[in-house]
Amino acid sequence: MTPFSTEVYAERRGRLGDRMTEQGVNLMFVPPSADLEYFTGAQRRMPTFGNTSYTHGWACGAFFRPGHEPLFVLPRMVAEFDMPQGVPGDVVIINETDDGDAVFEQVVKGFGRLGKVSVEQRTWADAVLALTKYSGGAEIVSATPLTNPLRRVKSDEEIHLMQRACRIADNAMGVVTGDIADGAVERDLVEELDGLLHGDGSRGTSFDTAVWGMGKSSNRDASDRETSSKLNRGTAVSFDFGAIVDGYCSDFGRTIAIGEPDSEYVDVYDTVIAAQAAGIAATRPGAMAKDVDSACRQVIVDAGYGDHFRHRTGHCIGLDVHEYPFISEEDETRLEPGMTFTIEPSIFWPGRVGVRIEDIIVVSETGGVRLNEYSEEMVVVDASPSAFSDSGDGEPGGCIHHDGCGHDIS
Amino acid sequence: MTPFSTEVYAERRGRLGDRMTEQGVNLMFVPPSADLEYFTGAQRRMPTFGNTSYTHGWACGAFFRPGHEPLFVLPRMVAEFDMPQGVPGDVVIINETDDGDAVFEQVVKGFGRLGKVSVEQRTWADAVLALTKYSGGAEIVSATPLTNPLRRVKSDEEIHLMQRACRIADNAMGVVTGDIADGAVERDLVEELDGLLHGDGSRGTSFDTAVWGMGKSSNRDASDRETSSKLNRGTAVSFDFGAIVDGYCSDFGRTIAIGEPDSEYVDVYDTVIAAQAAGIAATRPGAMAKDVDSACRQVIVDAGYGDHFRHRTGHCIGLDVHEYPFISEEDETRLEPGMTFTIEPSIFWPGRVGVRIEDIIVVSETGGVRLNEYSEEMVVVDASPSAFSDSGDGEPGGCIHHDGCGHDIS
Repeated sequence: MTPFSTEVYAERRGRLGDRMTEQGVNLMFVPPSADLEYFTGAQRRMPTFGNTSYTHGWACGAFFRPGHEPLFVLPRMVAEFDMPQGVPGDVVIINETDDGDAVFEQVVKGFGRLGKVSVEQRTWADAVLALTKYSGGAEIVSATPLTNPLRRVKSDEEIHLMQRACRIADNAMGVVTGDIADGAVERDLVEELDGLLHGDGSRGTSFDTAVWGMGKSSNRDASDRETSSKLNRGTAVSFDFGAIVDGYCSDFGRTIAIGEPDSEYVDVYDTVIAAQAAGIAATRPGAMAKDVDSACRQVIVDAGYGDHFRHRTGHCIGLDVHEYPFISEEDETRLEPGMTFTIEPSIFWPGRVGVRIEDIIVVSETGGVRLNEYSEEMVVVDASPSAFSDSGDGEPGGCIHHDGCGHDIS
Repeated sequence: MTPFSTEVYAERRGRLGDRMTEQGVNLMFVPPSADLEYFTGAQRRMPTFGNTSYTHGWACGAFFRPGHEPLFVLPRMVAEFDMPQGVPGDVVIINETDDGDAVFEQVVKGFGRLGKVSVEQRTWADAVLALTKYSGGAEIVSATPLTNPLRRVKSDEEIHLMQRACRIADNAMGVVTGDIADGAVERDLVEELDGLLHGDGSRGTSFDTAVWGMGKSSNRDASDRETSSKLNRGTAVSFDFGAIVDGYCSDFGRTIAIGEPDSEYVDVYDTVIAAQAAGIAATRPGAMAKDVDSACRQVIVDAGYGDHFRHRTGHCIGLDVHEYPFISEEDETRLEPGMTFTIEPSIFWPGRVGVRIEDIIVVSETGGVRLNEYSEEMVVVDASPSAFSDSGDGEPGGCIHHDGCGHDIS
């Protein structure tokens, strides 16, 4: 089952065809990817660490031409096991014993004279090389300028799916908040979160869930995503994770203090929240992506922590977690209503303090609207140490949520 | 921490350089991948459904030349957050506001005259296009013929790591076997397995863990990998999953009957076990990969189920789950001592029966040796239905493991 009707996919392909014609592109090749899902409904597999692949795996995807239905070329194993629901359009199957290169050549040459051919940006090298070889001297270019301007502006239906993906993340964070405590194992919280996302209808996780403590009693940096460390009183734990609803991704982040935080943590938390609010306030149709970055960043610079906001402010998000444009100093893309992106300012200072807040914002006609609903108030979890004196994996003792610390931002 | 000493990586690069010289390749580009991990120890990130990426994300990887240390080109965000441990060799950082294309051009042109340039097979299209553009008319070719013959023959140290990855899978299967029961939810078993793998030291899962019931009371096919179905008495549940130890992957499969199976299931189980045994018996240095496939397949064909063994017999495995050569009808690669591959015959007949057995086999001087230790005896789990009459997630009732059914194969 695809999340949209066949008419929606056909309409998307119609707009794609118009753009191809405008840009003089005769042919576009798209392997299994978010692009393929967007234009045809053909679902991606979950990616694997170990790069699963079949014979002729490079020659897998669909060819798009203006005014034509897609033509799929699929290794037999992919057609049989990865796309059992079928695909819209004609299909050429490459059997294991076929000469895959020859089949690919025949298909490409069958399109006739080609002036310009686009390829999806993560197309395998072998497919790019074969297209170069068999397209009769055509210019081969990246498909991103064709496809991203379509994908980056979301329809109401797409925003609805993203909102559901945000709600699943919000709810999971709400449950897990109750299990954060001095002595809790980060890995256990990761597994709890992943289970909650699944249980609430997410198709896996949109990226590898990260849970990490930072603070004065630890040299941990945000780049250290893999650990079985125990969380300690006096640190703060950051969460970075997302859900998937019908292919659409969320990406969410909060930091929660364990034990009463010192005044610097409170200042830093306030600064990060204020930075996000400034980013949201700078969000409006016609502004550039980099304007949101600079508005957000300036708050942190002014507070004296500029060197510790070490990454871009955010990124557009949809079928992929990281979509262009990026909310980053170099990106001059103009914002349009329907764009969805993260605003995720941080102050990461290993051995001292680590705070990040991340929400998805949708650009409306009048400004930026937050899709997440989890509170931005500072949360302090102050488990009783005695609950962990005997065993490392008991239930947390008293959990106190400090809500209403006087923050009133955004 | 890398799993091998710097000398091991240097020695691998030395052999790579020799092969490049032999094949007339002046330059090889490798993005973050198993190849990069093999030659430098630079760890891959876990892959993400949502394709996380940074500005200039296409221009990320290392250049290798015979007799030179690697030269890394890394977007600043990758260097700071994904490779904080550093890399062996020189590094060119591309900052967000840099002209990434110009930096890449300068690096490539700095290598001088190039006759032939290899690219890792999943190099992004933009990088392949830029290499084509800036390498002065050099021939661009796939790096697989360079790298796979090195990677596919494992050292004793690599086999030891793979054995540990197999043992983690064996042990997890052992624990989960006790929780299989009429009424158990497939998703819960997936989460239990993934948690056990992590808990036992695996770096995540080597691919998306699959748990699915097949049998007369279900139309389920093996291609349906995502479900929250409950398992039912009268079906059999297949498992397909793997662990990761220091980057090395395992891939393991068993099928377990729920409730006393009928005679066809018993025959099919026997046939699949006998097929695997025939594949192992055909494994020896000098045999072709396809010989193992045909020996294994013939047993299933002879039993009258040939149309229901719908996939190749297996694949080599190591840093990737699917490595060349494939144990498949078209693959004429000669087996060598130290190769590691799966033998995973199945009989998948939706609405009737589904059984698959998968183990990793290492080629020794004298034949095939199984790396997995979990029993191949038929296991029947026959939970008391009453244990599930009140709630869907209680502990299973009586579990009976029928070991010693008279099977004595391999």
